[in-house]
Formats: sequence, structure tokens, C-alpha cells
Amino acid sequence: MSDMANGSTNDHRKHDPLLGRLTRSSQKRLFRKRYSKPGSAPGRFEPPQDQPTSDPAVDVLVYDADSVEEKRSVSLADAFDLVRDEAVTWINIVGHGDGRLIKEVGERLGIHPLALEDVMNVPQRPKVEHYPEYEFIVLQMVEWQNGVDTEQLSLFVTQRMVVTVQMKAGDPFVGVRERIRSGTQIRTRGSDYLAYALMDAVVDHYFPVLEAMANHLEDLEDRVLQVPTEELLHALHNMKRELIYLRRAVWPLREVVGTIARNETLRLSEITSVYVRDLYDHVLQVLDHIESYAEFASDLRDLYLSRASQRLNEITKVLTIIATIFIPLTFVAGVYGMNFNPAAGPLNMPELGWRWGYPAVWIVMLVIAGGMIVYFRRKKWL
Amino acid sequence: MSDMANGSTNDHRKHDPLLGRLTRSSQKRLFRKRYSKPGSAPGRFEPPQDQPTSDPAVDVLVYDADSVEEKRSVSLADAFDLVRDEAVTWINIVGHGDGRLIKEVGERLGIHPLALEDVMNVPQRPKVEHYPEYEFIVLQMVEWQNGVDTEQLSLFVTQRMVVTVQMKAGDPFVGVRERIRSGTQIRTRGSDYLAYALMDAVVDHYFPVLEAMANHLEDLEDRVLQVPTEELLHALHNMKRELIYLRRAVWPLREVVGTIARNETLRLSEITSVYVRDLYDHVLQVLDHIESYAEFASDLRDLYLSRASQRLNEITKVLTIIATIFIPLTFVAGVYGMNFNPAAGPLNMPELGWRWGYPAVWIVMLVIAGGMIVYFRRKKWL
Amino acid sequence: MSDMANGSTNDHRKHDPLLGRLTRSSQKRLFRKRYSKPGSAPGRFEPPQDQPTSDPAVDVLVYDADSVEEKRSVSLADAFDLVRDEAVTWINIVGHGDGRLIKEVGERLGIHPLALEDVMNVPQRPKVEHYPEYEFIVLQMVEWQNGVDTEQLSLFVTQRMVVTVQMKAGDPFVGVRERIRSGTQIRTRGSDYLAYALMDAVVDHYFPVLEAMANHLEDLEDRVLQVPTEELLHALHNMKRELIYLRRAVWPLREVVGTIARNETLRLSEITSVYVRDLYDHVLQVLDHIESYAEFASDLRDLYLSRASQRLNEITKVLTIIATIFIPLTFVAGVYGMNFNPAAGPLNMPELGWRWGYPAVWIVMLVIAGGMIVYFRRKKWL
Amino acid sequence: MSDMANGSTNDHRKHDPLLGRLTRSSQKRLFRKRYSKPGSAPGRFEPPQDQPTSDPAVDVLVYDADSVEEKRSVSLADAFDLVRDEAVTWINIVGHGDGRLIKEVGERLGIHPLALEDVMNVPQRPKVEHYPEYEFIVLQMVEWQNGVDTEQLSLFVTQRMVVTVQMKAGDPFVGVRERIRSGTQIRTRGSDYLAYALMDAVVDHYFPVLEAMANHLEDLEDRVLQVPTEELLHALHNMKRELIYLRRAVWPLREVVGTIARNETLRLSEITSVYVRDLYDHVLQVLDHIESYAEFASDLRDLYLSRASQRLNEITKVLTIIATIFIPLTFVAGVYGMNFNPAAGPLNMPELGWRWGYPAVWIVMLVIAGGMIVYFRRKKWL
Amino acid sequence: MSDMANGSTNDHRKHDPLLGRLTRSSQKRLFRKRYSKPGSAPGRFEPPQDQPTSDPAVDVLVYDADSVEEKRSVSLADAFDLVRDEAVTWINIVGHGDGRLIKEVGERLGIHPLALEDVMNVPQRPKVEHYPEYEFIVLQMVEWQNGVDTEQLSLFVTQRMVVTVQMKAGDPFVGVRERIRSGTQIRTRGSDYLAYALMDAVVDHYFPVLEAMANHLEDLEDRVLQVPTEELLHALHNMKRELIYLRRAVWPLREVVGTIARNETLRLSEITSVYVRDLYDHVLQVLDHIESYAEFASDLRDLYLSRASQRLNEITKVLTIIATIFIPLTFVAGVYGMNFNPAAGPLNMPELGWRWGYPAVWIVMLVIAGGMIVYFRRKKWL
Repeated sequence: MSDMANGSTNDHRKHDPLLGRLTRSSQKRLFRKRYSKPGSAPGRFEPPQDQPTSDPAVDVLVYDADSVEEKRSVSLADAFDLVRDEAVTWINIVGHGDGRLIKEVGERLGIHPLALEDVMNVPQRPKVEHYPEYEFIVLQMVEWQNGVDTEQLSLFVTQRMVVTVQMKAGDPFVGVRERIRSGTQIRTRGSDYLAYALMDAVVDHYFPVLEAMANHLEDLEDRVLQVPTEELLHALHNMKRELIYLRRAVWPLREVVGTIARNETLRLSEITSVYVRDLYDHVLQVLDHIESYAEFASDLRDLYLSRASQRLNEITKVLTIIATIFIPLTFVAGVYGMNFNPAAGPLNMPELGWRWGYPAVWIVMLVIAGGMIVYFRRKKWL
Repeated sequence: MSDMANGSTNDHRKHDPLLGRLTRSSQKRLFRKRYSKPGSAPGRFEPPQDQPTSDPAVDVLVYDADSVEEKRSVSLADAFDLVRDEAVTWINIVGHGDGRLIKEVGERLGIHPLALEDVMNVPQRPKVEHYPEYEFIVLQMVEWQNGVDTEQLSLFVTQRMVVTVQMKAGDPFVGVRERIRSGTQIRTRGSDYLAYALMDAVVDHYFPVLEAMANHLEDLEDRVLQVPTEELLHALHNMKRELIYLRRAVWPLREVVGTIARNETLRLSEITSVYVRDLYDHVLQVLDHIESYAEFASDLRDLYLSRASQRLNEITKVLTIIATIFIPLTFVAGVYGMNFNPAAGPLNMPELGWRWGYPAVWIVMLVIAGGMIVYFRRKKWL
Repeated sequence: MSDMANGSTNDHRKHDPLLGRLTRSSQKRLFRKRYSKPGSAPGRFEPPQDQPTSDPAVDVLVYDADSVEEKRSVSLADAFDLVRDEAVTWINIVGHGDGRLIKEVGERLGIHPLALEDVMNVPQRPKVEHYPEYEFIVLQMVEWQNGVDTEQLSLFVTQRMVVTVQMKAGDPFVGVRERIRSGTQIRTRGSDYLAYALMDAVVDHYFPVLEAMANHLEDLEDRVLQVPTEELLHALHNMKRELIYLRRAVWPLREVVGTIARNETLRLSEITSVYVRDLYDHVLQVLDHIESYAEFASDLRDLYLSRASQRLNEITKVLTIIATIFIPLTFVAGVYGMNFNPAAGPLNMPELGWRWGYPAVWIVMLVIAGGMIVYFRRKKWL
Repeated sequence: MSDMANGSTNDHRKHDPLLGRLTRSSQKRLFRKRYSKPGSAPGRFEPPQDQPTSDPAVDVLVYDADSVEEKRSVSLADAFDLVRDEAVTWINIVGHGDGRLIKEVGERLGIHPLALEDVMNVPQRPKVEHYPEYEFIVLQMVEWQNGVDTEQLSLFVTQRMVVTVQMKAGDPFVGVRERIRSGTQIRTRGSDYLAYALMDAVVDHYFPVLEAMANHLEDLEDRVLQVPTEELLHALHNMKRELIYLRRAVWPLREVVGTIARNETLRLSEITSVYVRDLYDHVLQVLDHIESYAEFASDLRDLYLSRASQRLNEITKVLTIIATIFIPLTFVAGVYGMNFNPAAGPLNMPELGWRWGYPAVWIVMLVIAGGMIVYFRRKKWL
Repeated sequence: MSDMANGSTNDHRKHDPLLGRLTRSSQKRLFRKRYSKPGSAPGRFEPPQDQPTSDPAVDVLVYDADSVEEKRSVSLADAFDLVRDEAVTWINIVGHGDGRLIKEVGERLGIHPLALEDVMNVPQRPKVEHYPEYEFIVLQMVEWQNGVDTEQLSLFVTQRMVVTVQMKAGDPFVGVRERIRSGTQIRTRGSDYLAYALMDAVVDHYFPVLEAMANHLEDLEDRVLQVPTEELLHALHNMKRELIYLRRAVWPLREVVGTIARNETLRLSEITSVYVRDLYDHVLQVLDHIESYAEFASDLRDLYLSRASQRLNEITKVLTIIATIFIPLTFVAGVYGMNFNPAAGPLNMPELGWRWGYPAVWIVMLVIAGGMIVYFRRKKWL
């Protein structure tokens, strides 16, 4: 009996990267939303005690076609000092801290308390909301680390400024920042293009995640086609769970980018419009892939189950063949092991005293076994 | 044989909080609607004999930016005496009693009999209906107590007044009342904002329910990944049933709040509009969660079944290995237990008289057993 | 072996009210529509030979705010004699007979032959059709008698008259008739309100059916959670079949009442509009319930199957435990039942002559059995 | 062992009308469309070598309110000679032959090559296409002959003429032709009504097919509720396949007739409009039935599988009961069949020499068997 | 035991055309998209290092009603030299090479960098994008070579020019090119008709693929109805995977051609409109087929599983019959093989000394066996 068959499957899972997620299941993920006490005032600010984040860091980047000014880890006041009317300003805030900084940003830009609440109470559904002075956009950035990790990105887009808030450190916008510094076309365009570039960077990060999931799924397929083990079952379950999370995070994005592309909220310049339309196309591609992965994962589960049932069939077949051949033979042997006294009567097991009794019994048994084998052949079991 | 395997599973369920709902199944829940006798006049009032509620209690709260007046458990006449033209009045009625109070409210405010009937014949589908003088809104409040409990909240919203009717005691609106008393922005706004605040409180109460269900589901997942028992199956079934109930209660809400947010019925001030849009977003989030829970629960059921079939496979494998090794051996032993008389002829079991007969038989048996083991190895059953 | 396990399950079904429908399966129900010979002229009248109904009975009720005149089982001519311009007339026809009466009604009111054909060729899909002089509405009344029974109600609504045709006797409109007689508000309103009142009575009759089905489903749930038998499987199948029939009968109703509520066909007075909107709400509720019942029934079937597979698991486990413990022991016993002649050589079963041979064999056997039990414990089978 | 259980199931299928379709599977049906070589010019005419049809036969019928002129199997030129401006002409062509006749029709009526190509490359999706001078309608006629057989009907409808092309002989339009001859209302109406009448005849032919399928399904239901055999499984599979074909043929019809009913293409007279609306209703009924049959068939398959699993359960139960009772008994008998030499020591099987040894062993065995039976009773297996 | 039953199934797959795809699974296909580094500038050109294509080849074809000029494998400059204002120019580029040629085309025609990026980063979702000076269309060409192979075709359509870019050699447009050379109607029409003709050629190539898949599916059906083997399971899984790929490639095409047919982007001449409408119809047909194939494949998988479970049933039945008949008999034989000493007491196995003991035992055994057989008959197992 192999070890694999016993109950201690936990040990395997821990060391197998494909199956690793299970060990993190203590981390609750089906419901992660931070929410205000029911009945409390909307837009209220509460220090997020449960999920303390490091003190927020503020980066600022002010640019126009001719110049770029960049400061990292400054105070909010310093950041706003850099704002110039004719330039585009991008303020990036990492971490919520105790929420005061977010509140201060809200006051400086006149942001609605509800929007600020949505920045704090992560995760929100991806959405775009139009306010007279600014647009408020919520996106979910995703990463694949043995599972889907999402992080909220909140954007406020005004006429000449973009403010982004993300929760954890790590910089998905290295590329955008570099393009601003090195003076590509982005420098000649407005805040709408900057907002597009940031959203584009977020959506572009979906592709490596999809690629990782595709690799994972194809590995699982290979394994299912080889020996199906119970660990595979768990891995498939995990995969489906991750796809549920990913879909929940990405699905509303279609509507968000579609709304922006139809120019219903954000005032896009004509140039940016073309780009947002392209972005919309990317979102559709991401959703296409998620859908086909979900279908593929279901298919793999079905294949797994089919193979398991095939296996059961085969095991039962072996058992049946051995048992149905030998059980009758054993019976015959048992008969001639009986101790009836031949002396008591002429019908009491006279065979035992026959000259050819023993060979005859062997012949009988071989005939039985041969008949069984012929029967199994006819049934194509052999 | 463990006790678990026998039929007396009922005992277990009673003591396990996860599985507790079953014991309440005598309480019919698939169809709970109170309905009038078919063919009877619409909008007729019948004292609800079957579900007697305590005498209705009337609470009233009148406020404007400067002052708040609050009375609890007053008569309806007293409540209406407090109404002032320039102030917002909120009358909260708990319980239907014999329906007379509801009828009186209807007469005082000129409410259509059909709407009054919907207040009495709970539960109704969540809906919003426009009447010239008022809006009529029906919501379902939910609670999680080892299962989803719903309770209808009916709102009548006029220009300067909100009347709410709930059936059971218990105050989901503590927070709203407190905010009115303590003079926050709610005091400076109209009845539309009050209606929003009450609806928001109802929707906010969904999140703890979702959280409880998510915890429950993740507990179930942990259990399924350990030893799958029949109780788990019942718990999963219960969970799916609760999700069916919850979806039935919440799904129409999307349309209700969407209709209000599009300003098709309620005359919302511009300020309130923003808040209702945010509320709509919350409703979508709730529905997203319900959908993914339903999918997750289905997945868990599949995982459970897969594990059960895996288990059957394994059990059958053990049986097969033991049986196919020992059945042939037993046959061999049976052969040499036969009593053919060697004296009757030279071919009658001469083996029994061989010098090395017994060791030779052992060798034959070991070869058979070894061959079987090699065969199982090749098949990866060992 | 219980009787239940053999093939004679038919006997059980006949006596169990839950399972009773099966005995009526000779009554074809998947396709019950009466249809004209393909290629025949539309709107042609053929005496319905196959489904003879009793001679049609004509009831007439003429009322205005002040007076009510009622006659039952009159001739059509007499009925039309009562018609007064300023009053509302309701003619109710029960049964088709040979179709001549229907034809005569059609001629008197100038009804399109296609509509008359739809009255005869039951069942039609629920629908509303606008003709210049009248509206033609088809509804399905349902009853629960160990299964869903539907009956078509055809309505012709003109300016001052409503003509209803139903096929079988039995009066779902007792309540409406009573309300007219007793002079409630219905007397002050037009034919549109009468049509609404009749449709409302039809839809109200769905609720007891839903309640019966809910009770039935909850009974089935209780049974599945106890001992799942094959009869339950049939009952679940029947339930799903009834839900298919019910859905087919009710689903188009949504569109019908919705169309009327949007005032696209029937010229509703403003007052009636409110009531039809309420009726639409009831239809949505009915559909919500049907959907959740269908989902619940599927869930029950899954639960049933899961329990059956659980049971198979358990049975196989018992077999495996007994067999794997005793098969090796039997082999050991078989070995020492062999008749090798100890006299032939010192290696021929010397154990048989050992002083402690027999106790030693018992110890060996107990060790084997104990090892097996430990193994099963480790696997949590015991 | 019954013959039914072995592999030679083919023989059964051939003789069972319910299962007969299988023998025709050599006839490819999943993809039957005739298509032009990719890249070839659209609207090109190729003689259909692969599916030779008999030479096309041309029937012509010219009628107005007063007269009917009818000729069968004439040349196309003769047919067109009969056309009168004030009369309605119906030309029916049976068979494509080498396509030249179709081409000639196209030239005479100025039909677009693409439409002609669609007449030849059958089957097309049902559709209606508007051309300035005519409407082009494609329908699928269906027949039930142990399976769904579809045949394309192409209609060209001009101001005063209808040209129909069908592929095989057989006349679904006997009824229409008869109505024209016998001078019913059809004679007083235009080509639009003739087109309606032909479409109506096609749709009316769906009802017998649906009835046949319903009967078939209900027969299958009866059989599944009796003994489920493997043949039933094939029959269910065939049924589902036929439903897939039927749905593919009928589904687009909804849009086609809907488009015509909304008067978007065909210029219908007001009178015909009413009839087409009725036709639309029939199409919806057909689709309702198809959907519920598909659901019913899935349900039957599930029922079949459930019964099979029930059966496996029961078989395994019988095996387990017999084996678990007798295996321990056989072991006991085996023990006392051992040949330990009582003379070698006092502990060597003294039981064999006891006065009550044999009865005692029987008592032990009966206790074991009784205990097992009690255990099975407790588990409700007996 | 057949070889088929062991683990070395890989060998079979390699040589079976139906199952051949598996051997190519090293070729990743779930996610194949080439994407730019996240955060990089949109529309950037990177030499595609990972998927090197041969140097791009440029073919040019310039034609009007009177003349055709054609050159193959020219330089881009030479190709553009041929462009004449009044003629239609078709430039076909095969292969991307290092992207420079594509870039040059973009510069010459003023194509947006995003569109150029989509040409390079294959595969894109099928789409049509409107730019002021040109339309950009992306299609997926498909081929069936033991699986679905897709290749992107990008079209740029200007007033008088069509530029197509495909990645691999192989010419799906032989037919179109031939039609231009031989002077059919295509010569008298504009670039919109040429674009149509090319899209039509692409869509026409779907039909042979569908036919191949239909044949494949029907072969699989035949095999499932004969002996279901594990290889079939893999083949069905592969088929479903291919259908997922195909659907992903074709589904968006519906919207693309629909958009063009509604004349929302491409400025179609009236003549071409008719053709595009026909093309739309073809796309719908393709999708209809894909859907019904997917349904059919699911059905086949279900049939396979049902047959497997049927088989398990049957195997278990054989085992049960043999075992339940012989196990009791073996027990009886075992009893009389016991060695109780008759001399020790009169109750010690007196049967052994009876005159008719042995025949009596045989009769007992035959009665037991006969009873079992009767029992199985009654259960219809025999």
C-alpha cells in the first residue's frame, strides 16, 4: 500500500508548488471587504485598526512637454507645492496609514466623502464615478503568487492632476514613470492620457497572471493525463477558486473601461479615446481568457473524475476475474477435502478412491478456469 | 465499524452549529408568503390570524437642522401631531398587530390599498412603486442565525415624511437614529436622504451576513479537505438552500436601487443622488458575493463527491489487492487438503508423499504472491 | 433482503400520495396541444372529437354602479339580450361543446377566426393580442392535484364587455362574482378593471399551487435526509417534470402582464393601471418561486445521489474490512489443512507435530487480524 | 448471465424502432452543409455532383378571386407564360437537378446570385433577406422518421408571385393547394398571404414531429422507470442528438418570423399581419416545446444514471451480505480442518476430541451469522 | 489482462490520428498571446525575438476594370510605386520579420501605432476599428491539423487600397487572386468589395474545419457506442479543448461582421452591403455549428461515462453472482472438512459416517445454488 493512499496528504501539499495554496487557507479570502458598522454615516473615516498599513508614502511627479520634476517620499504639502497650472501632476500615495493623509488629500481636492470611504474600505468593486470636479476610478491590480492576489488602485482624475492610492508597496508603474522621465509622447498629453497610461499598466499586468494560470492549468492537464492523485483534485479545486476570485475582480472592469471609452464620464481628448478603445479591447481579451480557463478547468475536473471511474472499473475487473476463476476452483478442492467416511457407504466419496480421481479433478478445475477465461474474452475483459 | 456509519446521524446534527439548521426544518421556508384568498378583492385588509404579531409600536422622530424631537411608543395620533411642515418626520412602526394601525396610517397619508396590502402580506418581492403623492419601497432585511432570516421593511416616502413598517422588534436603525440625534449632516437634508440612510442601513446589514456565510463556507472547505462525512453533505446542502433564499431576497434589489438611482421614481436631490449611486454599488457588491458563494458551494459539493469517489477507489483497491493475492493461495492450500487416496493409484496426489512437497508448495505460493505484487506495482497500485 | 430491493416497485408507488403521479403516466402530457391538420386553413373550426367536452354553459352578469343582473345557464341569445350600453357585461362560457357556440360568440362580437381557433385548440401559450375592436388574452389556470393541471382561460375584452371561455366546469371566479354582487368598488369601474380582476384571480390561484409544491419539496427533503429509496428518486423526477410543465405554462405570462401594464394594448384607465402593475409584481413573485423550486429540486437530486454514493462507499467498506481480515486467516487455516505426509520427509509440515503448533497458529492469525485492524484504524475506516 | 449483458448489443438496436437510428449513423449529419470552395466567387453556380437530385419538376398555379389555373411538371417557360399581372402566381420547383433551372429562374426574376447560391448550398440557416424587388426566405421543413429529417424550403416573394424551391419530392403543401382550388379566402388575397400560408404549412408540420418526439420521450420514461438497459442509454443519446438538430433548424426561425411580423421586410397587408402574428406565436410554442423536451431528456438521463447507481448499490449490498456472513464461517470451518496432531501436545486442537466440539462449533457459527444479520438489520440493509 | 489496461497509454496515443494531439501538448496553447512588458508605452515596436518569422514577403496586385498588374516578392517601395489613384491596390505581406517592414507600411499609410502593435502582438481578438483614414480589421484564420490552428489576418482598408498582413506562408487567397486575374465582377468594384472578398475567403475556410470536426465527432460517437476505452476519454477531452479554442477565435467575429454589415464603420457601397450581409449569415452558421458541436461533445462524454458506469455495474454483477453462489457452497464443504473426532462423542460429525451423507451434502449444495439462481432470476440479473 503506498503512502499516498493514506490520510496524511497534508504533507505533500506543503511541498508542492502546484498545490501550495492550501497551506494559506487560514487566510480568509472569500469575504475580505472592510466595511463600516451598519447604520453608521456614509463617508465616515475610521482608522483601519485591523489591517494596519505602513505610514503612507507620497511620490509626486510634475511634467509638461519640456520639463519633469520628481520627488519621492515627500509630505503632502510639499507635493502640492509643486503643482503648476500648465503642467500635469501625478501624486502617488502608497499605504493608508491611519487615513489622515487620505482625508487631507480629500480636503485639498474637494473629494466627496463617499469616494474617500471607498479608498479606505478595500476591496471595492471596480467602478468609475463621475463627480463635477473629478472622476473617481477604482481598479483591482492582480498578481499571481501561488494564487491570485488583488490590490485596489484608486484614481482621482482632475483637469491637470491624477492622484493614485495603492495599499501595499511595490511599484507597478515603473514603466510609466520611466516613460515620463525619458520624454516620450506622454509628456505632451494631458491628465486623461496619464490616467489611461496607468489603467493600461494595470490591465497589462493581467497578462502575466493569465500566462501563469495557463501554465498551471496545462501542467495540471499533463498530470491528470498521467496518474490522477487526490492532490490533483485539490489543485483543481484551488484553481477554480482562484478563477472565481479573478473573475470577481475583473468582470466589472469591462463596464468601467467601456463607460470611459464611450466618453460618458471622463472628458477624453480625441487622441486618448483611441487608446482607451484599445484598452477596452485588452479587457475583453482578459475576460475571454478567464472564461475559457474556467471552462478548461471544469473540463479537467470532469476528465479527472472520468479517469477515476475508469480506474475503479479496472480495479473491479481485476478483482472479478481473479475471484470468479478461483472461487469455483476452491469450492471443488473444498469438496474433496471433506471427510465423509467411504467405509460408511458406497456413495460416500467414492471418487477419493478412484485410480484417476486426482487427475480428473484437476481436469475439471482446468475446464472451469478455461471456461471462465473464454467468457471474459468474449466480454472483452481480457 | 464507527458509529458515524450507521443511520443515526440525526443526533450529530443537533449538536453541531455548522449543521444546526436541519433541526429547524419543521419551519416551512420554501414558501412563506401570506396571500389573500384567490379571487378576493385586491387591497383588502384581513387580520393576520396565522402570524400574530405583538401590538404595533409607533416611534416618531421630527427634526430639522436646528432641533430634534423624538417620542417612542406613542399613539399614531400623537405621532402625527408632531409633524411640522418645515421639518422631516420619520415614523417607525414595529409589528402589524391586527392591521388597524396600518390602515389608519394609510388613511392619513392617502396610501393606495394595494400598497397597504403589500405591507401586510409579507414577504413581498423588493420593489419600488411610484404613486403621485409618495413612493412605496419594499426591502428585505436579512440576518444570519444559523441560516438566513429575512424580514420585510416597507417604506413610504413623501415630501417631508418617511414612514417605515417592520414586523419584528429589534432595531436595525440605531445608527441612523443616533446620527439624527447628534446633529450630523443628515439633519440638514430632506426626506429623500433619510430614505437613503435607512436603505443604506438595510444594505449594510448584508455584509455581516455575507461574512458569516463566507466563514461558514471556508470552514466547510477545510472540513471537506480533511475527512468528508455525511454530515458535511447535509451542511453543504443547507448552505446552498440558504443561498437560494438569500438570492431570492436580494436579487430584485438591484433593480429597485437602480431605478431609484436613475431618478425614475423618487425625486432625489442632487446631493442624495451621489449617495444612492454609492448604495447601488454596494448592492452590486452583495450580488457579486452571493454569486461567487453559490459557485464556491457547488465547487465544494463537487470536491466532496470527487473525494468520496476517490475513497471508494481506494477501498476497492485494498480489497482487490488482498483478495487477488490470497484467493489463489487459498486455492492451492485447498488442493492439498483434498483426501484422495494415494493408495488407490500412483497419480492420486503423489505430491503429498514427496520429500520436498510441503516446501515446494510454499515456494509455489510465494511465487504466485510475488507475481501479483509485481503486477500491482506495474499498475502503480502499490 | 428487503422487498424494496426487488423490481416490484410499482406497488409502492400506487399507494403513496407523494409518488402517486406515476400511475397516471398513461395520460400523455409532454405534448397535449390540439392542432389543425398541417396545411389546413387558419382559423378553421373543427368539432373537437378527441376531447369531447360537455355542452357549453353560458353565465351572464351585467352590472353598473347601481344594479346587478345575473343569469346562469342561459342561451347565448338571452345573454346578449341583457347587454346594456352603459353597463359592464361579463359572459362566462364553460366548455367548448362542438364549437358552435364559440363560433356564434365570434360572429356576434366580430372576433377574428384565428382568435377563435386559439380558443378551441388548447392549450395555447399565454398571450395578449390587440385587435381594433377588442383584446384577446390567453391565460393558463393551474391546479395542483398530485401534479400540475393546467386549463386555458381565454378572455375577449371590449369597451363594455368581457367574454371568458374556460374548458372544464369549476368556478375560479366565485370571489369576483361575489364582489360584483355585493357592490364593492368593482361595480364603479369599467371592463378593463373586470378583466384585471379575472386575471388577478387566475394569478392568485398560483399561490396555493406553489405552496403545495413547496410542501411537497420539503417533505421530499426530509425523506432524502432520512433513508433514500428508489421511490424518492421517482418522486423527485416527477417533481422536476411538474416544474417543467408549470414553467412552460407560466413563463410567457410575464410578458403578457408586462405588455398590459405598459399599456401597449389594453386601454387601461389610470386607476386600473396601478392594479395591473401590482399584478405584474405577483407574476414576478410566482416566477421567482418556480425558479428557486427548480434549483431546490436539482439540489435535492444531487443530495440524493451523494447519499447513495456515500452508502455505496460504506457498504464497500464493510465488505472490504470483513474480507481483508478473514481471507488471509482462511488461507492460514487452509495451509494447515493440507495433507502432506510428515512421514515422507522432515520438512513436510513439521508444524503439525509441534507441541505448541496449534496455539502458535492462533497467535499468527490474531497478529494478522490485529495488524489489519490497526491499518483500518489508521485509515479512519473504523 | 443474460445475452443482453454481453457486447453484441448491435443486434438489438437494429430491430427496435425506438433505437433504430443508430444503424443510420453512417449517414453523416452533424455537418451536412454543401459549401463552395473557399475563396471562390460568391454566388457562383456549381452543379451539385455529390448530392444528385432528380431533374427539377415545375408546378405552377395562377389564381385570382374568380379563377384558378394549374399546371404540373411543365417547363419553366410554360410556367412563366401563365403569369398574369392581376393574378397571383405560385411556382413550385422540386429538386435542383444541375442547377440550370434555378439559374434560369434567377435570371427571369432578377434574383441576386447570392440568394441563388443559398438555394443550392443547402442547408442554410433559416433567414429572411430583403431585396428591392423581392424577399428571400429560407425555412427548414422537418419530418420525423426515427429521427429528425430536415429539408430546406426557399421562397422568393415578389409583388404578385411566390416561387418556392424544395429539394426532395413529397408535397407538404397539399392543403394549401386544395384551399386555392376550392376558392376559400386565400383566393382573394395577395402574394403576401400566399407566402404566409406556405410558411404556416411548414410550421404546422412541426407539431406532428413534436408529438412524435413527446411520445418517444414518454415511452423512454416508462422504460427507464422499468428496467434500465444499455439500449435505453443509446436511445436517450439519440434523442438528445435529434433535439440538437431540431433546435439548430428551428431556433433562427423565431427571428425570421419575428422580423416579418414586425413588418420590417415583407410588405404585408394589414390582414396578413394578423396571421403572421399568429404564426409567430406558433413558432414560440414550438420553441417552448423543444426547450422543455431537452430539459426532460436531460432529466431522464439523470434518472437513468441514478437508477443505475441505485442498482450498483443493491448488487454490492447483496454481495456484501453474503460474503460477510459466510467468509467468517468458512474461516471457522477451515480452522477445524487443520491437521495439527493432537498427540503432539495437549494444546493441539483439543476441541476436536471434545464430546460437544462439533455442536459447539455450529453454535459459534450461528452466533456469528446471527450477529451479522442483526448488524445488517440495524443498518437497514435487510 | 490486456495491455490496454496498464499505465503505458502514451504509446497508443502517438499512433492514433484521432488521439494525436496529445503529443503536441508541450506546445503551450491556452495562452499564446505575445504581449508588451506591462507599463511600456502603447504602440511600441519590439522585434519579436521569441517567435522569429521569416523575412516578410510583399506581394502587390493593382487592378481596375480593364487591367491587372501583379508583382510578387517585391520591396515595399516597389509595391507602392504601382499604386494608381483610379485603381484598387492590394498589398499582401507574409511574415513579420523584425517588424521594420510593418513599421514602414504604417508610416506610408499613416497608421496608428496601436494598430501596428496589434499586427505584431498576435493573436488579437477579432475586431474592427474605425480610424478617420482607414479601417483596421483583425480576423483569425483557422486550419484543422489534428487540432485547431489559428493565424491572425490583419487588414487595413483605405479608399483605394487593402493591405493584409499574415504571419505564416501559405495562401488562403489563391481563389481571390485568381478571380481578380480572370476579370470577374470583382475587378469592377472598389476596395470595400476586395476587403469583403478576403474576409469571405477567411470565413469560407471555417467550413472545412467544421466538417473535419464533425467527422471526428461522429467517429468518436461510433467508438463510444462500441468499446469505450480510456483513449476515447482523452480524445473527447482534446475535442472539447479544441472547441474552446475555436469558439474563442470565432465568437467575436459575429460582432465584427455584424458591425460592418450595419455599416457602422466601413463605408460599404450598396452592392457590397448585400454581400457582407450574406457573410454575416455565414458567420452565424459557423457559430451555430460550434455550439451544437460543443453540446454534442458534452453529450458524448456523458454517454461515455454512462457506459462506463453500466460496465461497472455488469462487472460487479458477475462477481456477485459467482461469489454469492460459491461462497456458501465452499462453506458447506469446509464444514465437512473439519476433523472433529467422531469417536469423542456421538454428536461429533455423525454425518460423516452416514450411508447417504455425501450425496445428501451434494443435494444441500445444489439446493443452495438453485435458490440463489432463482433469486437472481427474480431480480432480473440473469
